[in-house]
Amino acid sequence: MSLLVTGSIGIDTVHTPFGKRVDLVGGSAVYFSCAAAFFTPVRLVGAVGEDCPPNLLNVFEGRPIDASGVEVRKGSKTFRWHGSYVKNLNEAETVHVHLNVLGEHAAPIPTQFLDSKHVFLANSHPRLQRETLQKLQSPMLVVADTMNLWIENEEDELLKLLPLVHGLILNDAEVRMLTQEPNLVLAARKAQKLGPKFVIVKKGEHGCLMVTESEVFVLPAYPLEKVVDPTGAGDSFAGGMIGYLSTQDNLSPLTLKRALAFGTVVASFTISDFSLDGLKSASRPLIDARCEEFRKSMTF
Amino acid sequence: MSLLVTGSIGIDTVHTPFGKRVDLVGGSAVYFSCAAAFFTPVRLVGAVGEDCPPNLLNVFEGRPIDASGVEVRKGSKTFRWHGSYVKNLNEAETVHVHLNVLGEHAAPIPTQFLDSKHVFLANSHPRLQRETLQKLQSPMLVVADTMNLWIENEEDELLKLLPLVHGLILNDAEVRMLTQEPNLVLAARKAQKLGPKFVIVKKGEHGCLMVTESEVFVLPAYPLEKVVDPTGAGDSFAGGMIGYLSTQDNLSPLTLKRALAFGTVVASFTISDFSLDGLKSASRPLIDARCEEFRKSMTF
Repeated sequence: MSLLVTGSIGIDTVHTPFGKRVDLVGGSAVYFSCAAAFFTPVRLVGAVGEDCPPNLLNVFEGRPIDASGVEVRKGSKTFRWHGSYVKNLNEAETVHVHLNVLGEHAAPIPTQFLDSKHVFLANSHPRLQRETLQKLQSPMLVVADTMNLWIENEEDELLKLLPLVHGLILNDAEVRMLTQEPNLVLAARKAQKLGPKFVIVKKGEHGCLMVTESEVFVLPAYPLEKVVDPTGAGDSFAGGMIGYLSTQDNLSPLTLKRALAFGTVVASFTISDFSLDGLKSASRPLIDARCEEFRKSMTF
Repeated sequence: MSLLVTGSIGIDTVHTPFGKRVDLVGGSAVYFSCAAAFFTPVRLVGAVGEDCPPNLLNVFEGRPIDASGVEVRKGSKTFRWHGSYVKNLNEAETVHVHLNVLGEHAAPIPTQFLDSKHVFLANSHPRLQRETLQKLQSPMLVVADTMNLWIENEEDELLKLLPLVHGLILNDAEVRMLTQEPNLVLAARKAQKLGPKFVIVKKGEHGCLMVTESEVFVLPAYPLEKVVDPTGAGDSFAGGMIGYLSTQDNLSPLTLKRALAFGTVVASFTISDFSLDGLKSASRPLIDARCEEFRKSMTF
């Protein structure tokens, strides 16, 4: 098993109805790694600036995460994001964002990571995602995330990437934008025809939808009584899902559905507290137990 | 089995991205009856004005619906609603509404309906709902719908009704308004403590949530590729659900979940075409088959 993730590592300031926290560790690759590490060892590739406090990355300690692909770039600053969920707990309002090191070039992939079999390309410029992919020797499962910025401004690059990936993860507004189709099932079907074997549409508090060539799956979100900080929900979902998939030897409908359920449950731990504190309170047995409870609650 | 429904019977004009239709049969009691009649005989109580074209009610023909409780009131006009889904297929914009006969007094319940064991009180003034209930001899299962208007203006009457019903059905905005709680699970729990044994929160295209004293169930909506006209989705959901429940001798978690699934599937037929045309294309075997497909798609 060798699951590689490339994506952002950042310093977040987050404001939710439950309070404000500054200088938290965040970023897509960080949430993904910590979520996937409940299932399989993870290889993390990303860049921070030399301003990054070393203890920020302590979060990887004691987890099967190989952070040797984290570049500390001299002369650069770490990605910073300040978001607020005060008005709407389901949608972040970006107060400000400083791309810093993310606006430069991609972090190099360590030689010892080039044989990775499972890959998650967290949201990034689709050209960079494709370049990363082309460096890998023989990946078996590649899943990419994307966002409205690239759909709007880099559609050609995105359309070149999609036939190269097995899975695409994006949210409801993004898949509608990509396909110009308001119906989500049809939109996901159209996106699937652009290349990937499966397309997963994240609907936040409303769960997710997956379309393969022949099937449609829907899952509600795990019903949580207290959502403290939704930051990282999508990347934790991807981490739980692909972490589980990388321990399996097939992409059968049942395997994919189980992966969706694991992603859903792992994300429910993330949003129960600020930053990575929700995931810190989780464990594989707790995840398995919540998954079983979730399964039972939907069995009819 | 004897399932009584009291609610509106109306003439609708509906505008959706798929076209405009005028003078359609509609109303909560009509959708409910036609949905529930796939499962059990239905007794319908409601009023129309003398302007109501007799063929409007032909929709009940050939179905086990006893429409002898439909009062044709002299000197009154039928309820009319004109709604548009052109801007947003998930939320009706009311172009105009004429309460007409609905703004007068409730239709009388025929004597031969007073022994009804199962009752759906479609959305109406909570005092009228309570008065209806008090006329019945020994109902075993009573479910009520309500709306923002009564939560805002008739809260005292609504709070008197809730301890008298077994189930309450309302939408996400309404349960949040009733309980002043933004988290849906907590809101449903709070509503359940106001009296009913179970509270069902309808989330439209995002499915539903049910809370009982000890459990929380969530179900996504059935993933449909073409939603033509969402009018009547909520009442069809209630019809499928309570129609099924009234054939069962218990309210166990499994029975309630199956009822939610039947409601979800019946509503998916309703919204696939204008007015009652979607339900006309359904049958019990088609409903059972879609329910089984839905069940399988969520089994992991």
